[in-house]
Amino acid sequence: MLLSHLATDIIIVVAAGVGILFALFQWYVVSKVSVHPSRASVSKDNKNGSIDNGHGDYLLHHQEEGDSDGASVVLKCAEIQEAISVGANSFLLTEYKYLGIFLGAFAIVIFVFLGSVENFSLSPQPCTYDTSQECAPALITAAFTTAAFAMGVLTSVLSGYLGMKIATYANARTTLEARKSVGKAFIVAFRSGAVMGFLLASSGLLVLFLAINLFKLYYKEEWEGLFEAITGYGLGGSAVALFGRVGGGIYTKAADVGADLVGKVERNIPEDDPRNPAVIADNVGDNVGDIAGMGSDLFGSFAESSCAALVVASISSFGTEHNFTAMCFPLLISSVGIFVCLITTLFATNFNEITDVKKIEPTLKKQLNISTVLMTVGILIVCWLALPSSFYIYDLGGTPKLVRWWQLFFCVGVGLWAGLIIGYTTEYFTSNAYSPVQDVADSCRTGAATNVIFGLALGYKSVIIPIFSIAVAIYVSYALARFYGIAVAALGMLSTIATGLAIDAYGPISDNAGGIAEMAGMSHHIRERTDALDAAGNTTAAIGKGFAIGSAALVSLALFGAYVSRASLASVDLLSARVFIGLLVGAMLPYWFSAMTLKSVGKAALSMVEEVRRQFNTIPGLMEGHTKPDYATCVKISTDASIKEMIPPGALVMLTPLIVGILFGVETLAGLLAGALVSGVQIAISASNTGGAWDNAKKYIEAGASAHARTLGPKGSDAHKAAVIGDTVGDPLKDTSGPSLNILIKLMAVESLVFAPFFAAHGGLLFKLFS
Amino acid sequence: MLLSHLATDIIIVVAAGVGILFALFQWYVVSKVSVHPSRASVSKDNKNGSIDNGHGDYLLHHQEEGDSDGASVVLKCAEIQEAISVGANSFLLTEYKYLGIFLGAFAIVIFVFLGSVENFSLSPQPCTYDTSQECAPALITAAFTTAAFAMGVLTSVLSGYLGMKIATYANARTTLEARKSVGKAFIVAFRSGAVMGFLLASSGLLVLFLAINLFKLYYKEEWEGLFEAITGYGLGGSAVALFGRVGGGIYTKAADVGADLVGKVERNIPEDDPRNPAVIADNVGDNVGDIAGMGSDLFGSFAESSCAALVVASISSFGTEHNFTAMCFPLLISSVGIFVCLITTLFATNFNEITDVKKIEPTLKKQLNISTVLMTVGILIVCWLALPSSFYIYDLGGTPKLVRWWQLFFCVGVGLWAGLIIGYTTEYFTSNAYSPVQDVADSCRTGAATNVIFGLALGYKSVIIPIFSIAVAIYVSYALARFYGIAVAALGMLSTIATGLAIDAYGPISDNAGGIAEMAGMSHHIRERTDALDAAGNTTAAIGKGFAIGSAALVSLALFGAYVSRASLASVDLLSARVFIGLLVGAMLPYWFSAMTLKSVGKAALSMVEEVRRQFNTIPGLMEGHTKPDYATCVKISTDASIKEMIPPGALVMLTPLIVGILFGVETLAGLLAGALVSGVQIAISASNTGGAWDNAKKYIEAGASAHARTLGPKGSDAHKAAVIGDTVGDPLKDTSGPSLNILIKLMAVESLVFAPFFAAHGGLLFKLFS
Repeated sequence: MLLSHLATDIIIVVAAGVGILFALFQWYVVSKVSVHPSRASVSKDNKNGSIDNGHGDYLLHHQEEGDSDGASVVLKCAEIQEAISVGANSFLLTEYKYLGIFLGAFAIVIFVFLGSVENFSLSPQPCTYDTSQECAPALITAAFTTAAFAMGVLTSVLSGYLGMKIATYANARTTLEARKSVGKAFIVAFRSGAVMGFLLASSGLLVLFLAINLFKLYYKEEWEGLFEAITGYGLGGSAVALFGRVGGGIYTKAADVGADLVGKVERNIPEDDPRNPAVIADNVGDNVGDIAGMGSDLFGSFAESSCAALVVASISSFGTEHNFTAMCFPLLISSVGIFVCLITTLFATNFNEITDVKKIEPTLKKQLNISTVLMTVGILIVCWLALPSSFYIYDLGGTPKLVRWWQLFFCVGVGLWAGLIIGYTTEYFTSNAYSPVQDVADSCRTGAATNVIFGLALGYKSVIIPIFSIAVAIYVSYALARFYGIAVAALGMLSTIATGLAIDAYGPISDNAGGIAEMAGMSHHIRERTDALDAAGNTTAAIGKGFAIGSAALVSLALFGAYVSRASLASVDLLSARVFIGLLVGAMLPYWFSAMTLKSVGKAALSMVEEVRRQFNTIPGLMEGHTKPDYATCVKISTDASIKEMIPPGALVMLTPLIVGILFGVETLAGLLAGALVSGVQIAISASNTGGAWDNAKKYIEAGASAHARTLGPKGSDAHKAAVIGDTVGDPLKDTSGPSLNILIKLMAVESLVFAPFFAAHGGLLFKLFS
Repeated sequence: MLLSHLATDIIIVVAAGVGILFALFQWYVVSKVSVHPSRASVSKDNKNGSIDNGHGDYLLHHQEEGDSDGASVVLKCAEIQEAISVGANSFLLTEYKYLGIFLGAFAIVIFVFLGSVENFSLSPQPCTYDTSQECAPALITAAFTTAAFAMGVLTSVLSGYLGMKIATYANARTTLEARKSVGKAFIVAFRSGAVMGFLLASSGLLVLFLAINLFKLYYKEEWEGLFEAITGYGLGGSAVALFGRVGGGIYTKAADVGADLVGKVERNIPEDDPRNPAVIADNVGDNVGDIAGMGSDLFGSFAESSCAALVVASISSFGTEHNFTAMCFPLLISSVGIFVCLITTLFATNFNEITDVKKIEPTLKKQLNISTVLMTVGILIVCWLALPSSFYIYDLGGTPKLVRWWQLFFCVGVGLWAGLIIGYTTEYFTSNAYSPVQDVADSCRTGAATNVIFGLALGYKSVIIPIFSIAVAIYVSYALARFYGIAVAALGMLSTIATGLAIDAYGPISDNAGGIAEMAGMSHHIRERTDALDAAGNTTAAIGKGFAIGSAALVSLALFGAYVSRASLASVDLLSARVFIGLLVGAMLPYWFSAMTLKSVGKAALSMVEEVRRQFNTIPGLMEGHTKPDYATCVKISTDASIKEMIPPGALVMLTPLIVGILFGVETLAGLLAGALVSGVQIAISASNTGGAWDNAKKYIEAGASAHARTLGPKGSDAHKAAVIGDTVGDPLKDTSGPSLNILIKLMAVESLVFAPFFAAHGGLLFKLFS
């Protein structure tokens, strides 16, 4: 080990700082695209040099599009952007208000339950793993856990909120740049995604580092309690993510499905047509669901995998020997990740130019490849610098496992590369460049039913390779370094999170940009460009979800291991009926949860449909475009429905571990976690890939880029109508229930970990009653 | 224990004999309905008295329908029946031919692999559980296992084939009776179902009993080896069931989907219209998929749960103390089940009359209630008569568990009643008398997309209560009598199999009857009656599938326990990565399998669509009804496609345990079985309920029986079209992939059990290589 304590501190802080500065720089570059006509001439003074072409914005627009009034278009864009931004803002504030109440109450539960473990005593107690030592009383650790929970909640809220702010800032700018070329639009959308990616990765790292150092002031060298308390950070992050994903997911899909069903299907007007009353709500949805929800989600994964690694390390030789640098290994991996992603981003923004629609997907794919290759080197360096040449990992009550530094390199690496394989598989199954999606498109020939059947089959099939990849990652990392290996494998998969988020966020931004172009009455031409960006965005969104799910599986398993250790279980034996019924019921939970979220979207969409129909029927001149629809009512319907409907599924996830732990005890809860994990991963992957494939099958027919595609089209053909039905079915699958499932898995695991001492002390009431 | 060895033998043989006689009697009654016009006047000489009304068949028909030529209608029915019967016959023979080759090869694998355990030595070896004793060499047990496998295969083939014969015999007779009244048609369909139910339950019991007694001639008092060999019976039964369900399922749905897509959607002709070239194939499909496939499936469940119970008992105190009556407890339960079901059947056929369409569902439901209540008493009596007042069950390498006779009553009873709860839940979620299906129908208002979303949500939601019921059954039965308790709980759920099969087979028979009515050009009126029977049939089919899945879960768990014991595993610890990756991959298998089967149906349906379109386009006068279509080509397409497509999913299920056992060893295989179980159960339940709900939502709109339904209809309305799409999507879910999944679960478990000694001796090559 070559790195000193001080050097470790410096690297982490510098990485976080550089990440934040880089994000601000990207923001600055994006801000150069003006949405104010009066300042349009200023925008050409672009210091970056790559955007400036000697023409002011409308001059160019004027030339290309033959529009006589460029300024009015820019004004219109700004207006629409404002409306979207206001809607998104107001929804998030409402959501966070309700969340505040719920999570405030939950914080009290954490404090009281954990405090009760030693009957609220304030005198020091013997430590769990080394009973000869004295440790902080449970009540103090309960207080710190609650504080860490609050920090996690706040950071997650901030991540989601910032993401939304950036996306609503970038959407109209992407539209305006799309007038120039597809490449310029791409760069704006991608840079904005990068802003979000880097801000989130850096702030997550920084807050975690600060929390550790703050808590250390009290705990000093008692790391077991310290990192026990830190797990609250992961719980807080994931709790917000759950409600963000579910609430945002219901919001966006209620609006989307509602808008499409009346607009596209009944009234035969294009998507995002300004006459559609639900169109603003639909575009707000992209920002609160796909952006804010996803931001919180990936922040949660990052926080949890770090916490899982830290809590396992704290009872291994890093912890017992007080090797701070090695303890910080997870944070160092994330720090190097920021640098790697920074370099990777330059390949998209500076070393490469998109001149053609066909180049979008390869460019995004190259981001994945470059970041993975660079990160492999980065991991090797960190392992070499930060780890002792060999050390012990404690195998949960078993014998310590000797690990060499290079073995840990393979653990992190296998996670990283498993992520890449999952990404590629997802791309293969959801991109319309390959046969699976083309087959689905082809099946539209015989109608919506075969489209749905083929789409479901595609989703089911797409789980095979990801599951094998995850299984290999689990086996290798466990064989080398037990549950610590699994935790750092998860970190490996998430180490390129900044790039992952950038290419993920780019999708909804492009989607919004297309919507704004349509609403501002821009030409068909521009819409085609944003559609091409959006199609690639569907694939990257699916890839992002693949990463999120894969890492969630590894994270949950690591948390599961940590939970078992803290609950003092020697084994989780499937031959025990207590464990097995947990496993069975756990495997059912993702279905219950999906039923709730799907039904919520369906119900909310139905009320949206009624409102949109009402407006079309009662507002005179709306169809003709003489009168403006009442956008606000639709925004309100989505807001109200999603706030109301996010509570039952949220409560299901948050309360199940508590109920099971209290009534049935730690064994059944262990089974439940394992069941939810292995079942949820499959549904999550298949749901998001099915949805992505349907969306792109539709876009394949619409774009008509190949001879085969043209036999199915054009828009409005029977095959296209069948494809629209598939796309609509896929919406809630891929954007509401699917992505929420990985939070379900992680959240139940981290919650069980946090409450493990309480369940071990006071749980299993029902079985105690009967025996 | 009050029952002697001899009395046990007598009860079992008498029960089987009575069951077979009762089935023959029912067949005789059904045969009284003549499908030969020349003998029509004979048919009124009905000895039963319930059918005879003093009118000859056509006279009545003439009166009721105003048809001037009753005889020609009867002739037409007979002709169609013949065509269906020939098609079904030829498919099953082709299927069994291929199956013969595959299973012949598999029999050799069984013999060689199991024989190799002791290197093909013919000298006696120390027993597994009591090493002081000498047991038969592995080679001999391998030979007996192979023989038992062959007996299972033959019985299962017989079950499927007989079921098909009965159904194709009953379908036209049901149609003809439907001219008189809905009640008379119901009785014919129900009696025919009973023929199948009783033949199957009785022959399964009889062959098993014979096999045990035959094997006993060699094994004498060495019961461990005897019942080890008997497990081959379960494997044989399930292997046939797998291919039967998958092949038959693909056949029926390729034809059904293909016929509907062109006929109903494109050409706007009614279902089962004789002009549709795929119509005979569609009706053949009902008989080979829903009837023959299901027959083999439930026979497999019965055989496996009996084997699981026997193998656990053989190493418990029944086996070691050589208490033959107690050993035969599982067979005695099945024997009493036959008597109970016989009485229950009389309530439908003799003590009750259906005067009204609304009475069909309550009558079928009453069958469930009556059989469950009577069986509860029956179980109590068997427990009291056949069991010692207390005995020991060996807890797989752990301490023996003392069980009292009345505790075993609760084990069987909890399985039986859990089955009833599952049945009721299924009914609630799939019958159009309740709000879930009505909600789905209502969602058709906004099109096919919302229909699909609501249907999927319904299916997901419908797993909750069944899973809790199964979990309670598992916990209670395990707590009372370990894995033996679970095995007899499964038997409890299956103890009323004769009634279950009767109400299950009744559905496809009614479906066929409706098809024949349409094809024979009978009036609208008759079709309405068969439709009402069919709608109830959808619900009973879903209930039957619920039982099949619930029992499969319990059976598999019992087999899993027996497997673990025979593989000499002390625990199946989820904290071991070997187990966990098995669990993860196992949970993926149902998805892989479903992807294959869904895609197969889709592909086969597409070729059917092309053929049907071709015929409509090239055969002049077909649409006008002047020319007959070429039914045979469609039958051939379905046959070829299903034979070809059943191989990959079949191979996946049959080979996975072998590959995993040989390469990864017994621990990973244990994880795999558990994963496939907990994941497969959920998909299977949700798939069959979603499909059933869509089908009945469509029927709800078509029937227009309530004010609400009428706002959605009539046939041909937009809402109805949306409902048809949902129904078509549901077809492969509920009749192909869903019901095959429970065989996947059971088959992998019983196969692992059979091969356990081989895997324990020679398995896990890959891990051995690396360590």
